[in-house]
Amino acid sequence: MPIAVTMGDPAGIGPEIIVRLFAEAPELAAGCFVAGDVAALRRAAQSLAADGVPALPVAEIDASAQALHRPPRCVPVLQVVAQDAQPVPCGVVSAAAGRMAGEAVVWAARAALRGEVAAIVTAPLHKEALAAAGFPYPGHTELLQAEAAAHLGLPASQVPVRMMLANQELRTVLVSIHMALREAIEAVRFDNVLGTLRIAHHALAAALGRAPRIGVAGLNPHAGEGGLFGTEEREIIAPAIAAARAEGIDASGPYAPDTVFMRARAAAGRPGEFDVVVAMYHDQGLIPVKYLGVEHGVNVTLGLPLVRTSPDHGTAFDIAGRGCADPSSLMAAVRMARALAFRSA
Amino acid sequence: MPIAVTMGDPAGIGPEIIVRLFAEAPELAAGCFVAGDVAALRRAAQSLAADGVPALPVAEIDASAQALHRPPRCVPVLQVVAQDAQPVPCGVVSAAAGRMAGEAVVWAARAALRGEVAAIVTAPLHKEALAAAGFPYPGHTELLQAEAAAHLGLPASQVPVRMMLANQELRTVLVSIHMALREAIEAVRFDNVLGTLRIAHHALAAALGRAPRIGVAGLNPHAGEGGLFGTEEREIIAPAIAAARAEGIDASGPYAPDTVFMRARAAAGRPGEFDVVVAMYHDQGLIPVKYLGVEHGVNVTLGLPLVRTSPDHGTAFDIAGRGCADPSSLMAAVRMARALAFRSA
Repeated sequence: MPIAVTMGDPAGIGPEIIVRLFAEAPELAAGCFVAGDVAALRRAAQSLAADGVPALPVAEIDASAQALHRPPRCVPVLQVVAQDAQPVPCGVVSAAAGRMAGEAVVWAARAALRGEVAAIVTAPLHKEALAAAGFPYPGHTELLQAEAAAHLGLPASQVPVRMMLANQELRTVLVSIHMALREAIEAVRFDNVLGTLRIAHHALAAALGRAPRIGVAGLNPHAGEGGLFGTEEREIIAPAIAAARAEGIDASGPYAPDTVFMRARAAAGRPGEFDVVVAMYHDQGLIPVKYLGVEHGVNVTLGLPLVRTSPDHGTAFDIAGRGCADPSSLMAAVRMARALAFRSA
Repeated sequence: MPIAVTMGDPAGIGPEIIVRLFAEAPELAAGCFVAGDVAALRRAAQSLAADGVPALPVAEIDASAQALHRPPRCVPVLQVVAQDAQPVPCGVVSAAAGRMAGEAVVWAARAALRGEVAAIVTAPLHKEALAAAGFPYPGHTELLQAEAAAHLGLPASQVPVRMMLANQELRTVLVSIHMALREAIEAVRFDNVLGTLRIAHHALAAALGRAPRIGVAGLNPHAGEGGLFGTEEREIIAPAIAAARAEGIDASGPYAPDTVFMRARAAAGRPGEFDVVVAMYHDQGLIPVKYLGVEHGVNVTLGLPLVRTSPDHGTAFDIAGRGCADPSSLMAAVRMARALAFRSA
C-alpha cells in the first residue's frame, strides 16, 4: 500500500522538503506520493532546480495506487485539494494556504482510515493559517483525532492519543504536551499515566514485534527521593506502573528523571536499557530527544487507528522558498512511518 | 597555592577514586593534597594495589603547602580529622564515617576562606552518615554556605548559592534544586531568577575572563508560547532578564526549554550559542547535562567566596571498596577547580 505525504502549508517549507525527499532519497520515497496541490509542488521543484537540486518532474497521478508504479525520478502528486487561481505567497500566513494544508490532511486521514494508504507523513502546517481557513483544530493531532473518532463513531475524548518523539537513539512518549507546567503537574493522574503506558505498549509492541521495555520517569527531582521532594511518584505514578504490569506491560520505575533518558539512550551500537521512556511532561521528554540536534527527530501520534508521523519542526516561514530547508527530519519521518506501517500490517 | 581534595565518606568510593586520581593522572593531581584521614587513604591504596592499580605510597604531610613540593608518585594526605581506633566498614552508613567526612569539609572550607588553599574539590559524602554524626546540614552546599556566612559575618540567607553542572559540552546553573516540581515553580520568582543570573555572570566572568553569554530557559513548553501555556515567562523571567541586562549582564531569553540546551551545546569543535544556560528547575538543567553520560559531569557551587567543585555522583556504597569506581568525574572536578581558581586569581 502507498504512503501519503501531505504537503503541509504551501507557504512554508513543506513542498520544498518533499521535493528534496524524492530527489535525494528515491529509494526511501518509493511507494510514497504527495497528497496536496500539483501547482504548489511544481513551484517548489522549479525553485529548487534553479538552486542546483536535480530538477524533478512533478507528475500528477489519478489515484493513490499509482504511486506504487510511478516512473523513477519524479514527484507523484494526487490533487486532493481544490485548486486556487493564484499561488500563495511564501512565508506569509494566509487562509488560502491554510485551507489547502487542512484539506490535504483531512483527505489523507480518511484515506488511511478506509485502508487506501498504509500511513500518512505530514509536512508542517501553520496553526494560524489553519485557523484563518476555519478549521477548528490547533494542529494535526486534534484534526486526526476528530477524523478517527468520526470514523469509529466515538466522541473524540474516547480516542486518547499521545505524542511520541523519537530519533535514532531515544524514544519518548509524553503524558501531556502543550500546557503550562503547572497544569502538566495536574495532568499527572492515575488514568493519564496508565493510559500513556497502554498506548506506548501497544504502539511499540506492533513496531518492535515484542513487548517494549518501558522506563517511566518520575515527576520530581530524584523521583521524589522517597517522598521528600513530592508525593506524585508514590501516590500516582508507582500505582499506575503496578496496574500496567498487572496487564502484562513491561513498565518499570518511576526513575530519577535526570538519568532515565541517559539510561535509555542507544548509542555506539549498545542498546539502551529501555525501548521507550514515558515522560511526565513536554520538556522532560523533549529536552533529551532534541539535545543532539533536531535534524533526525520524528513526531509520531500514537493511539489512532492509523499510522501518522511527521518531521519535528514547523513551517519555517522565515526560510520558506529559498531552497535551504533541511529534509532530514522528513526523511526520518518516512522511514519511521514505513517501519510502523509494515511491521504492524 | 595548593588544592584540597576532601576525602568524602570513608565508607564510600571517595578514598579509592582519590587514590586513582593520583595514580592515573599525576600531572592533573600536581599541587593537590587530600584533606582527610591517612589510614582511610592507606586502606584504599592497598586494596587498589591488590587489584592491579599501581601501588602508590600514601605520604602524610604536615601542612598544605607541602603539597606543592611533594615527591612524584605518592598521595599526600593532611590529617585534618580526629583519628579512629577502628577503620569504618565499607558500604555502611556510620556516624564515625560521617564525622570524618564532615570534619574534612569544615577544615577545607576554612582553609579556603583564610586563603590557604586555592580551591576545594569534595569527594562524595553520605547525608545520612553526616546527620548521624550530628552535622545539621543535608549536604556540602549548605555546610559550605554556613561556613562562608560565618566567615563573612552574615546570616546564611545573605550568601545565596547556586549549583552549576558542567561537562565538556554544556554548563547549566539552576534556579532551584532539591524540592518538588510544584515548589520549584513557586521558586521561579523575580529575585531568584535575577540572583541566579548575577551569580552565573560573576562566576563565569571570572572563569572565562569575559562576560559569559547566558541563555535563559523558560519554565513552560515553548517558553509559554506568548502566554498561551503559562505566564511566568512574561511576568517573571523576561523582567528579570531585562533587569540583568540593565546591569551589564549578557543574558537573553527566555527561550523554549526543549531547544535552548541543544543551542548551547558545544560539540565537534563548534562553540555553543551560549556559555551557560540558566535553568528554571533541577531536571530541566540536569537531563541534558547527564544525557551523554555522567562520567564527566562536574558540580560547582557558585556564589561562595571560595572555589568548590565536586564529582557529579554519590558515595556508591554498593560498589565501595571493590576498586571498580570510575575516577573520571573526580578528575574533571579537579580540572574545573584549577580553571576556576587560577583564572579568577
